[in-house]
Amino acid sequence: MSSSTVSGATGRGRRSPHTARHTTRRRNLGVLLREVHRDGAVSRTELADRMGVNRSTILTLIAKLAETGLVREETSATTGRAGRPSLVVRPETGQVYVLAFDVAVDRVVAARVGLGGAVLERREAARRRGGDDLDEIVDVLAGFGNALVDVAPAGAKCVGVGASYCGLIGAADGKVRLEPTTGWTELDFGPALARRLGLGLPVTVGNEAHLGALAEFERGAGVGSRNLVYLHGDVGVGGGIIVGGRLLDGDEGYAAEVGHMIVNPYDGRPCMCGSRGCLEAEVGEPALLEAAGRTGGPIGREGVRAVVRAAENGDAAARRALDTVGDWLGIGVANLINLFNPGVVVFGGMLSEIYRGAASRVNTRVNESVLHVHRERVALRTAALGYDSTLAGAAELGFAALLSDPLAALAP
Amino acid sequence: MSSSTVSGATGRGRRSPHTARHTTRRRNLGVLLREVHRDGAVSRTELADRMGVNRSTILTLIAKLAETGLVREETSATTGRAGRPSLVVRPETGQVYVLAFDVAVDRVVAARVGLGGAVLERREAARRRGGDDLDEIVDVLAGFGNALVDVAPAGAKCVGVGASYCGLIGAADGKVRLEPTTGWTELDFGPALARRLGLGLPVTVGNEAHLGALAEFERGAGVGSRNLVYLHGDVGVGGGIIVGGRLLDGDEGYAAEVGHMIVNPYDGRPCMCGSRGCLEAEVGEPALLEAAGRTGGPIGREGVRAVVRAAENGDAAARRALDTVGDWLGIGVANLINLFNPGVVVFGGMLSEIYRGAASRVNTRVNESVLHVHRERVALRTAALGYDSTLAGAAELGFAALLSDPLAALAP
Repeated sequence: MSSSTVSGATGRGRRSPHTARHTTRRRNLGVLLREVHRDGAVSRTELADRMGVNRSTILTLIAKLAETGLVREETSATTGRAGRPSLVVRPETGQVYVLAFDVAVDRVVAARVGLGGAVLERREAARRRGGDDLDEIVDVLAGFGNALVDVAPAGAKCVGVGASYCGLIGAADGKVRLEPTTGWTELDFGPALARRLGLGLPVTVGNEAHLGALAEFERGAGVGSRNLVYLHGDVGVGGGIIVGGRLLDGDEGYAAEVGHMIVNPYDGRPCMCGSRGCLEAEVGEPALLEAAGRTGGPIGREGVRAVVRAAENGDAAARRALDTVGDWLGIGVANLINLFNPGVVVFGGMLSEIYRGAASRVNTRVNESVLHVHRERVALRTAALGYDSTLAGAAELGFAALLSDPLAALAP
Repeated sequence: MSSSTVSGATGRGRRSPHTARHTTRRRNLGVLLREVHRDGAVSRTELADRMGVNRSTILTLIAKLAETGLVREETSATTGRAGRPSLVVRPETGQVYVLAFDVAVDRVVAARVGLGGAVLERREAARRRGGDDLDEIVDVLAGFGNALVDVAPAGAKCVGVGASYCGLIGAADGKVRLEPTTGWTELDFGPALARRLGLGLPVTVGNEAHLGALAEFERGAGVGSRNLVYLHGDVGVGGGIIVGGRLLDGDEGYAAEVGHMIVNPYDGRPCMCGSRGCLEAEVGEPALLEAAGRTGGPIGREGVRAVVRAAENGDAAARRALDTVGDWLGIGVANLINLFNPGVVVFGGMLSEIYRGAASRVNTRVNESVLHVHRERVALRTAALGYDSTLAGAAELGFAALLSDPLAALAP
């Protein structure tokens, strides 16, 4: 995958040849570990090929990682050629893990995630919309986090902490610049959570839709793609976009705000951002529930699911609501396809439910509105990681230091 | 700038250490030449710093390029520190050049462009809208090209040919997939022009707005930016977008079709793409001329300029037309800012005239519609290279081989 690169001996600094070789080897350990962490089981030959190094180098790298307990080699029945069993390298899931946190509009989640990406254990709690404050959220998450560390097997080491947040995150300082649904601004969420956890590890924070996009790209509905558009429904609509294998971040980290693309400039619904007719205002949870005449009933995932179920059971108002929302969603997606020429568009969070309930309408609108060259060519899919895309992305933030320099991350 | 990288000794293939060092040196010659080609005059120290190599390496590289006649060193009065004149490296413009071609909706241009990017000489002819065919265009351009080669100084060498085309270009095969205004499809324009030129050089073809974006990013209104959105008016509206220093191309090369973002889904004007309410349909030349009640008069640049001049002179219909177009343009630009979080938005081609005539309206609409974090932060500018952005981008395609491996490109 294009996100992994083998580190060369040159760079911006001036280093002695010895130091350069040393650095290259350490970085290459990270590159190898990343491949194994992402793909689960990779043969020696495949690894050597992907990294462009020879057999003796790959054996040295594997031996070093096996010695530290990060990977193990085993015989694979499935990938071996006839007559000769092939050795595959697998991530060792018991040795290191990360804590991943997810602050969504309606709930908070904490999980212990092992090398290889498996969620080993999780805790979850509801948020009261507009009823909590940041201290409360940090308290709950830190409690969850410490409990997860306490029950981890003896000897397992927490190597990083990542968090997904439903807000704009400044790339320069990692602050939550704005949580739109509460109106909170300039939150020092990462440092606050790190302090309360007391693990001596920083907490890296990312925007929920950006992280959902990364996770779906690396190990979900976008595996094998180069360009991916991810739309995330969490009451409002967020976006994460992968361009040539990299996350689109923009100058300050606020890119891919697909929810604030104006699709309905005439009689558009007012949006929380202050504008009107934004995609989020037309296809978010409130728009759907109002159009279906269900403003007093359940909200959140349950509310959205109820509309989709009702439409399936013949409820005309629910059907009409999904059709309307599907039309606007189709226009938004068509615009994104014309802009990004992606291989795949992924609907995550509540939008995965909405897309399931309005797929034919969305698909029709998209095919009517995209350029001919894109027609019937782009795959539209729901998130393969379900509601855990954002959590999985947060885990990847936690693993970043380990995958960049495994030996440094494991040093006592 | 992030587009220049120093090549390391590792990579996908397996090479002997000797070959790897050799390749690294040749690539580094290209990296150095690219810096000098783009920036005009760079000091030794600055070059060593940018490339992360030591003084002796940079001296060797400069000496090699000077020996081939591609650069020269000279004393700089302006960049030297007190008491010690500094040596700067400059591109040698007499030795090598490229041919650059620009096929726009209304005209064709050919130019001889020297190392360093200066247009040394040009030829231009009008196209009859809908009245020519590809053979005719190729004939005219090849005639221009050969004339430009004939009058080049003795000893100067043509090292590449690039062309800008007003259509969708397939990234895989370089074919013009579609020219929207003529409806022509699947044109083998590059090979046809290469054959007729008979220089033994291939012709690399790019989309006009993509090339305009690259040129404005490298040596125009976007110098110093990392993320740039370029909108190009050429009857319709094209787009080129720079993401983290790289051109956004998408899976097949069709990305950044900003002209086909639907901004007016209700009573939108029909678009050449078959859809309705696309940005291009609302702000392109025909929309402006119709809104101003000037359908029988001059078209193209002259027609657009006439509307802007009339509005300046108090013509109410022209003013209203620019206001309407400015509103739609503002919505489109706001959407692009929310999606890309760019440092700068550049209006090129006819859109530079329209933006000059409707700037306050566009700016107001943008500031109303972008997220708060972007308000008053993004620079909106007209193209610094004027109508030559696309031609300058085509020249860069022509220089690509030389800048990737200068010695190979100069080999007899």
